[in-house]
Amino acid sequence: MNRAQRDYQTLFTLSKKIRLLDSISYLLEWDQETYMPKSASSIRAEQIELMASLNHKQKTSKGFSNALRQLIDLDTGRVSAKGLSMAQRGALREWRRDYLQAISLPNKFVKQFAKLTSEAMVVWADARKQDTFHTFAPYLEKIVGMCRQKADYLGYPEHPYDALLDCFEPEMTTREITPLLTKVKKGVSDVLAKILASPQVEDSWIHGKFSADKQMEFGHHLLKAMGYDLSKGRLDLSTHPFCVALHPSDSRITTRIHPSALFESISAVLHEGGHSLYEAGLMPEYYGSPLCEAISMGIHESQSRLWETWIGQSKAFWKRFLPDLKKTFPNKIGNITLNQFYKAINKVNPSFIRVQSDEITYSLHVILRFELEKQLIEGSLKPRELPEAWKAKMQSYLGITPPTDREGCLQDIHWSTGSFGYFPTYVLGNLYAAQFFEAFEKAYPNWKAMVAKGELLFFREWLGEHIHQHGRIYLARELVKQISGKKLFADPYLNYLTAKYREIYRFTL
Amino acid sequence: MNRAQRDYQTLFTLSKKIRLLDSISYLLEWDQETYMPKSASSIRAEQIELMASLNHKQKTSKGFSNALRQLIDLDTGRVSAKGLSMAQRGALREWRRDYLQAISLPNKFVKQFAKLTSEAMVVWADARKQDTFHTFAPYLEKIVGMCRQKADYLGYPEHPYDALLDCFEPEMTTREITPLLTKVKKGVSDVLAKILASPQVEDSWIHGKFSADKQMEFGHHLLKAMGYDLSKGRLDLSTHPFCVALHPSDSRITTRIHPSALFESISAVLHEGGHSLYEAGLMPEYYGSPLCEAISMGIHESQSRLWETWIGQSKAFWKRFLPDLKKTFPNKIGNITLNQFYKAINKVNPSFIRVQSDEITYSLHVILRFELEKQLIEGSLKPRELPEAWKAKMQSYLGITPPTDREGCLQDIHWSTGSFGYFPTYVLGNLYAAQFFEAFEKAYPNWKAMVAKGELLFFREWLGEHIHQHGRIYLARELVKQISGKKLFADPYLNYLTAKYREIYRFTL
Repeated sequence: MNRAQRDYQTLFTLSKKIRLLDSISYLLEWDQETYMPKSASSIRAEQIELMASLNHKQKTSKGFSNALRQLIDLDTGRVSAKGLSMAQRGALREWRRDYLQAISLPNKFVKQFAKLTSEAMVVWADARKQDTFHTFAPYLEKIVGMCRQKADYLGYPEHPYDALLDCFEPEMTTREITPLLTKVKKGVSDVLAKILASPQVEDSWIHGKFSADKQMEFGHHLLKAMGYDLSKGRLDLSTHPFCVALHPSDSRITTRIHPSALFESISAVLHEGGHSLYEAGLMPEYYGSPLCEAISMGIHESQSRLWETWIGQSKAFWKRFLPDLKKTFPNKIGNITLNQFYKAINKVNPSFIRVQSDEITYSLHVILRFELEKQLIEGSLKPRELPEAWKAKMQSYLGITPPTDREGCLQDIHWSTGSFGYFPTYVLGNLYAAQFFEAFEKAYPNWKAMVAKGELLFFREWLGEHIHQHGRIYLARELVKQISGKKLFADPYLNYLTAKYREIYRFTL
Repeated sequence: MNRAQRDYQTLFTLSKKIRLLDSISYLLEWDQETYMPKSASSIRAEQIELMASLNHKQKTSKGFSNALRQLIDLDTGRVSAKGLSMAQRGALREWRRDYLQAISLPNKFVKQFAKLTSEAMVVWADARKQDTFHTFAPYLEKIVGMCRQKADYLGYPEHPYDALLDCFEPEMTTREITPLLTKVKKGVSDVLAKILASPQVEDSWIHGKFSADKQMEFGHHLLKAMGYDLSKGRLDLSTHPFCVALHPSDSRITTRIHPSALFESISAVLHEGGHSLYEAGLMPEYYGSPLCEAISMGIHESQSRLWETWIGQSKAFWKRFLPDLKKTFPNKIGNITLNQFYKAINKVNPSFIRVQSDEITYSLHVILRFELEKQLIEGSLKPRELPEAWKAKMQSYLGITPPTDREGCLQDIHWSTGSFGYFPTYVLGNLYAAQFFEAFEKAYPNWKAMVAKGELLFFREWLGEHIHQHGRIYLARELVKQISGKKLFADPYLNYLTAKYREIYRFTL
């Protein structure tokens, strides 16, 4: 083994410890949301905080930075070591990114921020319940201030929002994302207007009472069909569905079950299952290095959306699985036709709550949040002006005004946790997904016939080959180029939506 | 706050970190035995190993030893600081004990031992399955050798076995325990002989097919009656029942369910529930210090046995709960009388497997192991001679000879994990329990009438007041003295057994 390979191994070993510590924190969080006895929440917070501080120490340790410096210039990013593979050079680029991010925030700041947001989450939850924005406003003001400061610590090319966005979607900028989202907004709004002018879909039958056990059973049935390996994962219940991966061999998901909302749990299973297949598809031999990590939140979201929407809301998919669902709930939906079902699960209906929204209005929900949080960060919107700004935008984009803030600007947890910069990754996920899916359709023009027979593994394999196995070797933009031959743009997504909803609502554009 | 109190707080804070790290390891282990996807076992081993090494570093750190030294002389155990409470002085004594134990084993030895036993467990599991003692023998030989070395590192007053015993039952010695166990052996053997000469109990009806869900439901029912707070604990399924406590607010148990063995799961729930109530009864404000820890494995076992046996196999208990059990399984046991049930759950029947044995032969199973492991450690028995020695003792104590080693010396996991010195705590648990229960009976001479009405909380409260709340303030022997006015002796246990089984089997002694 040459010198560079030896140094690489040293770095890898140190880095693996960091990942292991992360994975242990994930278990603490998974348990907290699934099985933890409820009185344990306060000791759990201490356990999580201890792991976070131990891990921060590792990530910013002299030992780690010295090992990293042996291989890559921390200032310029130039890889000085000879004899490394392309994948290893990619790993070094990402290790450096993570390290620079970790050291740019002073310990004291990180602790203050953690304390503030942990208090703010409690205040937010209560404000949402009571619909009292004014109790949350002072916290929001502090959080915005600290996020602005965080951006300064991290540094940014142009707009302070860049720094925050970069934490979730590396090297994406406000300048690049703004025209993309503007185009999506315009395109989606046009489709929405056409839909609202068309006859609406009847779906009252989908809101019956569906046994929770049978919903879980059906969720497992779908997961197996997707190629989800239950010896490497699990499906449990939690208040909010999520995916958490401790390792490619231990990638778990949750769903929530409302007895009256059958498709909500199916959607969650397919969505989180998509996230989980990404994590399970990373190469375990690289575990500990960025080569066994997901690229970005946007790419992650593309994996969940592809399964949830492109596959899971397609007619082909339900041609195969609706008969099974009918067998599971014969009294409720035994007489529903494939067409009725397909239209119902794709029904468009402007509503106040993002997580319950349809595929069309979803993007508008997210873009609204992006615009508002960008304004908050640049200071052109004051936190106390948020409720009115929210209502005005909702009226303008969706034609409805939430009567309360709990159905408005208090509905999402993100801002109370300080996750400014996260929202746009939801739309990016759709754009990546659409562009990936076009490439997939070229490779498998007959995918619908295959999916209609219940064959899904070839889709998983295609994603595995083109996306999962690479870890963070490529940046998101490189991956998009590699798969589609083009850079990220909004057309594939808008074309997909237009074609799909034109058929459902029978309009012309 | 005076100087000593400030120093005490410093030590407490450092120690709390150690306990938090322990608690996180416990969650990793709990998850491993309950919900972990099975492919994750190899990454789980790495996570557990990392936490163990981080914690060992904390426990043996300069910072910790300096803080400890401010308050107590590490050589003599003299508490030099002024103005500390009796409880704080007790805590210092135990902190010193743990510290001296942690530093007495060289890091290299600890790692080698962990590696050897982790391999040995796999080899043992396979040898037990295949009944091939010879494949396990070389590992057993190495483990015995390392345990002997461990004893030398730890130091001992007289017998190397003292050092190993001390790890589980602090300050108990071979010299003290041997006559106790000899007396139990003699007393129990006499009772057993009388029982075997009496008419046997008919219990074939207890081996039906009992729904697993209903068994779990009934388990929860009993736990609630015991005062087990399900907001501070849980009951799950695992291969082997266990109790694990992350904190008094998070003390979890498991059981196992055989559809054909109704009482096995009830026993496990009461047993583990007893362990869990001890952990839940520790004072959370002292969490991080020995004042919020259990005294010893023997005292812990007394808590489980009291609930499982003294209460859970009493006629008074089933007077209250048999009607509920009948309602749960009306077709199986609807016609069983209280007397029939009481005799069946206390049926004595010499058999090969310790964990399935009755209250009488259980002690003989354990004493046999104690005698053999003591001989192994002192070198008077060679590991390869174990199978024959085992069979000879089984024949002599129980009158039966196991046809295979899987039903003989390969049945328990303990030796493969290197836990020499653990077995006697099972009998000590019974002795402590009997002596505690005599004191309890004096305080509540009418306990049977109360229990028969389903009142159990007063028993939990009595245990809490006399045992749980004290943590490790007192040594086991001090606690026994305090509660019973006497030192530990075998008579209460033998008297209890004799009285109970004389009534069931109608013999005279």
